[in-house]
Amino acid sequence: MNASNNGGTLYGLGVGPGDPELITLKARRILGSVPVIAYPAPEQGDSLSRAIAAAHVPDGLIEIAIRTPMTPGNFPADDVYDRYASEIALHLKENRDVAVLCEGDPFLYGSFMYIFARLAGEYSFEVVPGVSSLGAVAAVAGRPLVSRNQVLTVLPAPLDEKELERRLADTDAAAIMKVGRHLQKVKRVLSRLGLDEGAEYVERASMTDEKVLPLAEAPDGGAPYFSMILVRRVEEIEA
Amino acid sequence: MNASNNGGTLYGLGVGPGDPELITLKARRILGSVPVIAYPAPEQGDSLSRAIAAAHVPDGLIEIAIRTPMTPGNFPADDVYDRYASEIALHLKENRDVAVLCEGDPFLYGSFMYIFARLAGEYSFEVVPGVSSLGAVAAVAGRPLVSRNQVLTVLPAPLDEKELERRLADTDAAAIMKVGRHLQKVKRVLSRLGLDEGAEYVERASMTDEKVLPLAEAPDGGAPYFSMILVRRVEEIEA
Repeated sequence: MNASNNGGTLYGLGVGPGDPELITLKARRILGSVPVIAYPAPEQGDSLSRAIAAAHVPDGLIEIAIRTPMTPGNFPADDVYDRYASEIALHLKENRDVAVLCEGDPFLYGSFMYIFARLAGEYSFEVVPGVSSLGAVAAVAGRPLVSRNQVLTVLPAPLDEKELERRLADTDAAAIMKVGRHLQKVKRVLSRLGLDEGAEYVERASMTDEKVLPLAEAPDGGAPYFSMILVRRVEEIEA
Repeated sequence: MNASNNGGTLYGLGVGPGDPELITLKARRILGSVPVIAYPAPEQGDSLSRAIAAAHVPDGLIEIAIRTPMTPGNFPADDVYDRYASEIALHLKENRDVAVLCEGDPFLYGSFMYIFARLAGEYSFEVVPGVSSLGAVAAVAGRPLVSRNQVLTVLPAPLDEKELERRLADTDAAAIMKVGRHLQKVKRVLSRLGLDEGAEYVERASMTDEKVLPLAEAPDGGAPYFSMILVRRVEEIEA
């Protein structure tokens, strides 16, 4: 995928949902070839995408931790991404390829897109899709997402309660992402719709500490950010 | 993921969207360890998922081509899957693991679920998620699917025209799958909604003959089954 001019290539590298074995051959190859990697990280502490890719990151790379505040309900300020995009651009200008590691898939709610939006017009780029949390959650739950001509709605849990209810009432199947502190709200909505019984709660799918539970057994309080709820209004398949 | 009893394990193995390099390390490892593989195939001719995985399939495996009629608008009859499920079960009973290769992700509109529904209650199984066509299409189009608290609707193009229109009018972003012979209907709907200009048409994403075009430049007639249209009603990101 090419933009206008010369310089290094910006890679958006999906590293998969958590299990290091769910990285693709392509992502692994690119990790072995770039001089610079960047990855999202909390203000303090380790980066999940860096940890997922760890086995394939050669020694001696230049590493940029894109540290953003993880304030619930707020998206990081523009100036934070402006600053990191500039730092990455310095390498691209010097013809050094930069791979930005992305949990799951780069273009499904990934923070890579903020870097991408700032640099894709000026530099060559290539996005390497990864196994998304959507597929991982369905796999560990042993539940097909959708079949045949069914409609799947992907809903962020932070949406307004009424809006969640309206959309859940009108889809064949749904994946509710970013459950976190919205768990109790989602439970209320699903209960009102009579969709709670068949719903499945999955925490940290494909990671060593993953949890798969019927929604009724989900935590009473909040949930981790990396949790999802799968919902169906129709039979998954007519076998 | 365990079901009740002993016998071999049934694997649903996502092999990714087409580029053989988009297979995961885990899928590759399992391909090297199972004595039996199975894969969907047309009534005559080659299997796409078998072709994607070809470099990692050892010689001498037992291979089962799950041949189903590809009649547009019709789903294969139950008895076809009954028959193949029985054939696979014979191996599982003899403690031979069987990996069913799946294009993209096994649980996103995959035909694996018909085999899964027939065998998962009786045998151990494990589903290995793969890079889906959804992520691949967004990657090659260089277009984020959704960000922040946006809603993504995944819609099969065979849906009724009015139903497609109603759902496309009420989502932040959509991926219209299985476009095939429904391309002109989808074009009409998007044009009525004023969503045609920003829409992207992608054929065979990540394969060597992939095509990425603005919808206006999509074919006049039908499209291949492996084509998708990406639509947005909102700005992808506020960068």
